[in-house]
Amino acid sequence: MIRRYATPLARIWSEEARIRRWLLVEATVAEVEERLGIVPEGTSAGLKGLKLDLGRIAEIEKVVGHDIIAFLLAIKEKKRRNVDFVHYGLTSYDLVDTALSMALQESGQIILKSLKELASVLKRKAKAYQDQPIMGRTHGMFAEPTLLGLKFLSFYEETKRNIQRLRLAIEEISYGKISGAVGTYSQLSPKVERMVLRRLGLKPEPVSTQIIPRDRHSFFLSALALIAAGLERIGLEVRLLSRSEVGEFQEPFGKGQRGSSAMPHKKNPILSERISGLARVIRGYLTCALENISLWHERDISHSSVERIILPDATVLSHYMVNLTIRILKGLVVDKKRIEENLKNGFEVYFSQRLMLSLITKGKDKDWIYQKIQSLSFEAMKRRVSLKELVVGDPDLKGDLTEKEIERIFSLKELLKNTDTIYTRSLNSSP
Amino acid sequence: MIRRYATPLARIWSEEARIRRWLLVEATVAEVEERLGIVPEGTSAGLKGLKLDLGRIAEIEKVVGHDIIAFLLAIKEKKRRNVDFVHYGLTSYDLVDTALSMALQESGQIILKSLKELASVLKRKAKAYQDQPIMGRTHGMFAEPTLLGLKFLSFYEETKRNIQRLRLAIEEISYGKISGAVGTYSQLSPKVERMVLRRLGLKPEPVSTQIIPRDRHSFFLSALALIAAGLERIGLEVRLLSRSEVGEFQEPFGKGQRGSSAMPHKKNPILSERISGLARVIRGYLTCALENISLWHERDISHSSVERIILPDATVLSHYMVNLTIRILKGLVVDKKRIEENLKNGFEVYFSQRLMLSLITKGKDKDWIYQKIQSLSFEAMKRRVSLKELVVGDPDLKGDLTEKEIERIFSLKELLKNTDTIYTRSLNSSP
Amino acid sequence: MIRRYATPLARIWSEEARIRRWLLVEATVAEVEERLGIVPEGTSAGLKGLKLDLGRIAEIEKVVGHDIIAFLLAIKEKKRRNVDFVHYGLTSYDLVDTALSMALQESGQIILKSLKELASVLKRKAKAYQDQPIMGRTHGMFAEPTLLGLKFLSFYEETKRNIQRLRLAIEEISYGKISGAVGTYSQLSPKVERMVLRRLGLKPEPVSTQIIPRDRHSFFLSALALIAAGLERIGLEVRLLSRSEVGEFQEPFGKGQRGSSAMPHKKNPILSERISGLARVIRGYLTCALENISLWHERDISHSSVERIILPDATVLSHYMVNLTIRILKGLVVDKKRIEENLKNGFEVYFSQRLMLSLITKGKDKDWIYQKIQSLSFEAMKRRVSLKELVVGDPDLKGDLTEKEIERIFSLKELLKNTDTIYTRSLNSSP
Amino acid sequence: MIRRYATPLARIWSEEARIRRWLLVEATVAEVEERLGIVPEGTSAGLKGLKLDLGRIAEIEKVVGHDIIAFLLAIKEKKRRNVDFVHYGLTSYDLVDTALSMALQESGQIILKSLKELASVLKRKAKAYQDQPIMGRTHGMFAEPTLLGLKFLSFYEETKRNIQRLRLAIEEISYGKISGAVGTYSQLSPKVERMVLRRLGLKPEPVSTQIIPRDRHSFFLSALALIAAGLERIGLEVRLLSRSEVGEFQEPFGKGQRGSSAMPHKKNPILSERISGLARVIRGYLTCALENISLWHERDISHSSVERIILPDATVLSHYMVNLTIRILKGLVVDKKRIEENLKNGFEVYFSQRLMLSLITKGKDKDWIYQKIQSLSFEAMKRRVSLKELVVGDPDLKGDLTEKEIERIFSLKELLKNTDTIYTRSLNSSP
Repeated sequence: MIRRYATPLARIWSEEARIRRWLLVEATVAEVEERLGIVPEGTSAGLKGLKLDLGRIAEIEKVVGHDIIAFLLAIKEKKRRNVDFVHYGLTSYDLVDTALSMALQESGQIILKSLKELASVLKRKAKAYQDQPIMGRTHGMFAEPTLLGLKFLSFYEETKRNIQRLRLAIEEISYGKISGAVGTYSQLSPKVERMVLRRLGLKPEPVSTQIIPRDRHSFFLSALALIAAGLERIGLEVRLLSRSEVGEFQEPFGKGQRGSSAMPHKKNPILSERISGLARVIRGYLTCALENISLWHERDISHSSVERIILPDATVLSHYMVNLTIRILKGLVVDKKRIEENLKNGFEVYFSQRLMLSLITKGKDKDWIYQKIQSLSFEAMKRRVSLKELVVGDPDLKGDLTEKEIERIFSLKELLKNTDTIYTRSLNSSP
Repeated sequence: MIRRYATPLARIWSEEARIRRWLLVEATVAEVEERLGIVPEGTSAGLKGLKLDLGRIAEIEKVVGHDIIAFLLAIKEKKRRNVDFVHYGLTSYDLVDTALSMALQESGQIILKSLKELASVLKRKAKAYQDQPIMGRTHGMFAEPTLLGLKFLSFYEETKRNIQRLRLAIEEISYGKISGAVGTYSQLSPKVERMVLRRLGLKPEPVSTQIIPRDRHSFFLSALALIAAGLERIGLEVRLLSRSEVGEFQEPFGKGQRGSSAMPHKKNPILSERISGLARVIRGYLTCALENISLWHERDISHSSVERIILPDATVLSHYMVNLTIRILKGLVVDKKRIEENLKNGFEVYFSQRLMLSLITKGKDKDWIYQKIQSLSFEAMKRRVSLKELVVGDPDLKGDLTEKEIERIFSLKELLKNTDTIYTRSLNSSP
Repeated sequence: MIRRYATPLARIWSEEARIRRWLLVEATVAEVEERLGIVPEGTSAGLKGLKLDLGRIAEIEKVVGHDIIAFLLAIKEKKRRNVDFVHYGLTSYDLVDTALSMALQESGQIILKSLKELASVLKRKAKAYQDQPIMGRTHGMFAEPTLLGLKFLSFYEETKRNIQRLRLAIEEISYGKISGAVGTYSQLSPKVERMVLRRLGLKPEPVSTQIIPRDRHSFFLSALALIAAGLERIGLEVRLLSRSEVGEFQEPFGKGQRGSSAMPHKKNPILSERISGLARVIRGYLTCALENISLWHERDISHSSVERIILPDATVLSHYMVNLTIRILKGLVVDKKRIEENLKNGFEVYFSQRLMLSLITKGKDKDWIYQKIQSLSFEAMKRRVSLKELVVGDPDLKGDLTEKEIERIFSLKELLKNTDTIYTRSLNSSP
Repeated sequence: MIRRYATPLARIWSEEARIRRWLLVEATVAEVEERLGIVPEGTSAGLKGLKLDLGRIAEIEKVVGHDIIAFLLAIKEKKRRNVDFVHYGLTSYDLVDTALSMALQESGQIILKSLKELASVLKRKAKAYQDQPIMGRTHGMFAEPTLLGLKFLSFYEETKRNIQRLRLAIEEISYGKISGAVGTYSQLSPKVERMVLRRLGLKPEPVSTQIIPRDRHSFFLSALALIAAGLERIGLEVRLLSRSEVGEFQEPFGKGQRGSSAMPHKKNPILSERISGLARVIRGYLTCALENISLWHERDISHSSVERIILPDATVLSHYMVNLTIRILKGLVVDKKRIEENLKNGFEVYFSQRLMLSLITKGKDKDWIYQKIQSLSFEAMKRRVSLKELVVGDPDLKGDLTEKEIERIFSLKELLKNTDTIYTRSLNSSP
């Protein structure tokens, strides 16, 4: 995890937090075991808040070659009463995987919160620009006008879907295990697990091996990859509309900010570009996660080194990206003048379909119409005159359409009259 | 898609089937438009069953450079009444994307059916081997015994999760769009879309652009990748347990089958190895799908070439893999003798945790116990004698445990006594 | 492999071609073995040209479950003399992997040929536009002018690097093996291998197992992925410069071509978009290839199903993409008028660095200068007036620069005076 | 980058080292510019060793939103003479990309050094076990015996190829650029670049844009991914041969080391498993790198965030993995007794091909022979008796082979007689 992109979520993954989670799990197990008479009373006392020295744990690990055993020996060095009953009946991954689920659950919740804020920013933007026509572009080429608000509404809907996916992913990762070395409850009964996990806000893995199956973690990563790709789509829109020739959007540019060490005239959409880059990183992590599913028998540990890297990184980066997108959107400068200029530069060729359909209903041959309008449209753009003008003056089309019909065909208002329904439909269903 | 791995699902992706789906969508649109008085009566008549020549469509496409226009011109050549009203008000992707959702929905259903069969086979296997102890292995090394049935039960649970994910993915892809060039319903009202999609078994995309947003397709692919990884895990287990030195499993080997052109003595788990390979391919496709989400503005068409390759391939291969896994499992030969031999070769060291916990309760220092048992265990394996024997004869442990206690510690039955609960828990919840 | 993107390269991967290659290897082995007195004379006679029925091979494979054995039994059915000496001393993969190297070598050569043509087209374009200034853009924003020719020269250089990489990849895959079941030459001596491979244009794998190590195939795929990404970069440039607001490029648009079924006015850069998509697919295949390297012991066969899919697909798609890029470039329409308009719309702010450097040499504080020029540039763009004009009229800068100095600062010719050196440097080194 | 896997290479990527590299590049540019009379004498003096406060740079960056400008302003605050002539004529990426190439070059050299050590360890192991027969396994199943040394020799050859690839990758990344904002040398002549880069040990990028083209960085990453996959193959071999049922290898297990918190009897190949995991991570990074190639026009900056993460991580992890593999190999425990036991458990069925070939030369029908030997081999393994014994006693084969012939067929020495040639061939060509 690199500091540059760290968010408060990063503290979940600190060494300290990890040790605290492990202590919490050990303490909870000991509490339950005391309750059930498995270990002596007092085993759990003070365990949760125990101060362990990270350096000391690292030292021990060098000898024993096992991080959990080092952690336990460091506890043992504290010479507490009944210390040998700590970890009673557990296998390391009862601890590790249960704690990992807690960390992922917590990370997921933090990302979810940001994602909901993003949804609400998008919704607000969608409403704010509900009446702002803007050129719609397919293949990067002028297509038909749409509403600027609809762009945000489309992102809003995708974000709602991603919220739903992340909720599912959190749900899917909220499973722990206290089922022993190969998942058979060979030392402790399922009752212990049930009681411990309830206290920790988790559910028991129905069938575990030594570990929780890794399809759960992969599903979590796939939710993050989808979120990242959704943000990438937003960032891409910002970048495309910011281009000098388009000029409709501009990223927030701080007072005192500078765009280039060489060229004082530059303002660049660098935040959105950063989103584009980081989405690639998350995608790469998903592939790793998927390779982690297929482990040997009751587990091999090849997934562990992968997860030490990708789980902190992927959650922190996802959080960073959502927050950055919110920041971009909140500070986004919309240039209505350029939007209208660009629309005007379409020379009304974007009414070509309406024109074609009208002429079809007049009984003209569609093939002939298509080629006619195609050639008039190309001419309009080349000569930079309005298609309407060319249509009115075209001898072949003379008399086919009344003046009123032409007015209706070339009406932006008519073109966009159904957009209200989209808004109603979208805003009525909440994330 | 390669013929070698084609299943009946492949027919969904044939050129013929694609044209049939397009005709079905066009016909349904025309029907609804007739109903609403948008196009003349009779426009839709006979459209669904129209016979189009694929070669002719390809010829036209060479000129017009657009597959949908070629398809429409081929219809036009049939000189049917009102033919110019076919496709009235549509943009190509109203047709293409709606039809694609239908194809994915249908593919998903077929895979789901196989997946359910897989679940039922796994469940049966889990029950059949509920009483068969087998060595549990972590890191590829003997750990503690488990039940053979539990392996299958673990796969069964993962399959249930994958069934659930695929259901969601099918649900998520069951969206169509008849919303025009940039998703604004500029030519046809949302009502047309609603009526058409209801007939086709789809729901309207809440906010579309020219296309259905690609996060839906990605989510679908991520479900397939998870399924593939789950199958890979099963295949890997088969491969590992088939190894000559293990010999517990054997893939079905047909009468007359030969394992090698050079070595007549070979029987190889080639089907499971095939599963391992194909899972890689599906993973690769997911990465592509995720890159397809972030398109320019109201769409660019870069996703299209990708999808022409990965959607047929990924669905067919997934189906193939599920079916192949079913075949492997159904014909799987389990060698109980070898299973028991391997267990015996554990020399009871797998009771080391039970031994350690017992001694802890006796008040011995855990650290000392650990090292004691570690050294006895290593000796047991080296000298190929039972750990129990060594424990009984060890002077340091003399008197710590009664004979009865030792019997209990070294009891396989005791070790596995909690497994029934796992079964009950798992079998009570259906996929 | 989908027919839509098939090129003549595809024939290398047909079932027929595969059988022909296998026969060629078997025949060559038999010839050498006859020569060395290992098999009876006449064993090889007519083997190369033998006609085998693909359907019959498939039938046999259903029984024996092994494609090479089926192939050999189909030969046997021809009841030729000494037929049992065909395949003498070989293991299946002596045949399969040697033949596969030949197929990849041949595929590589075909792609290389196209790549060289691409280089030559790019070189031509680079020269043709050596004198055409065009706006340079970083972050999608106007930066400094460059030459249109330099864009092509940059692609040309990358293509030269990719040619070099592909040559290495072909070199690296030009290895065969006739070393038996586990690579020990247990049945045939290295001499047989040497003689056979020399005839087939391959070198002996220094240390093989049952197969040729898969890092060679991966390296080949990584060359293809780099080529694909290079083409993607070209395609992206075409797409970006084709945008309606930019209008500097236009893809070849055939007479009779149509851009949209709904909007007759559309011309879209669909070929370049296709390049973008297909690059994703090749990238996905590389990941699969890399997962194929790490096989069990002397081989497992999990790589085989992967390669049946990705090797034909990746080579054919690469070839298709190179050819398509050539087609795009050859037919590319360059709109010089739009290029000059866009340059003009830079309002000379792109001389900001030259201006800044001049003022630094005058001893002004750099920080102050930067902010001064930044604010003048932003004003120039906002008010759509030339930066030069603002500089001349600015009271703070009054007297800092002579009129002649200002002319030199704001000179496009001066800005681009070093570009000739780049051309000389690049054109002097051939691919 | 996580501390757990950091090697000394990590210091190359520290914030301090980055600033030092930037200062070195700035100083070198200033020196050359002084020499050429472009900036005043003394501009470069003391620049290289300047102490900058990282915290202060970060503070400034918060205002200006640009890391290089912050770095320059921090230099400016030092109030050195001529400070405004530092960075004269440069664009930020003249600095950043040149320095990045230096960092990658240095990283590459460090990895290369380790890789050479790995090659030498492998070579030594190959020689040490040149006379140790071991069971060869294909598909995880007993195939034919090979030599233990040959396994190492195969890794040695792959390592040699990877050394070669890394050398190429270092060569390919040893390019810098001082060519200005869009690569046109608009402010400084190519001569400055040439002089500067020569001093820094780099070559001028033939055609740059604002940046060095990213195919160079991708090629570097692809070399690392191939290295990682090669190590993964070694690690996999260790894991497979360590399995309890195989027992031929054992990873170094330290005095005092513990394998499991629950099971004192465990020794696990955790180092090799770690290699398996980390190879996945590097693969994931390659995909990201390939997506970085196709940038907008003269550059967009989306690659930057990706590279901040993947370049440090991929180089450090690669170095860590090579070193870890060396450590595993050096401490590897080989159990010859188990190796011989496993060979014995092959019951000589691995002579089946030799037997078949002998009988073919006797004129028997190959098909019949194959089935005969197949059935005898299956029987041998089932009944755990030697194949030779069954052959001798088989009535169908009676008289076909003399006793002497049988001795030769079932001779391990004969089987392995050609392996010396492999050694000679491999050891004669150095990395």
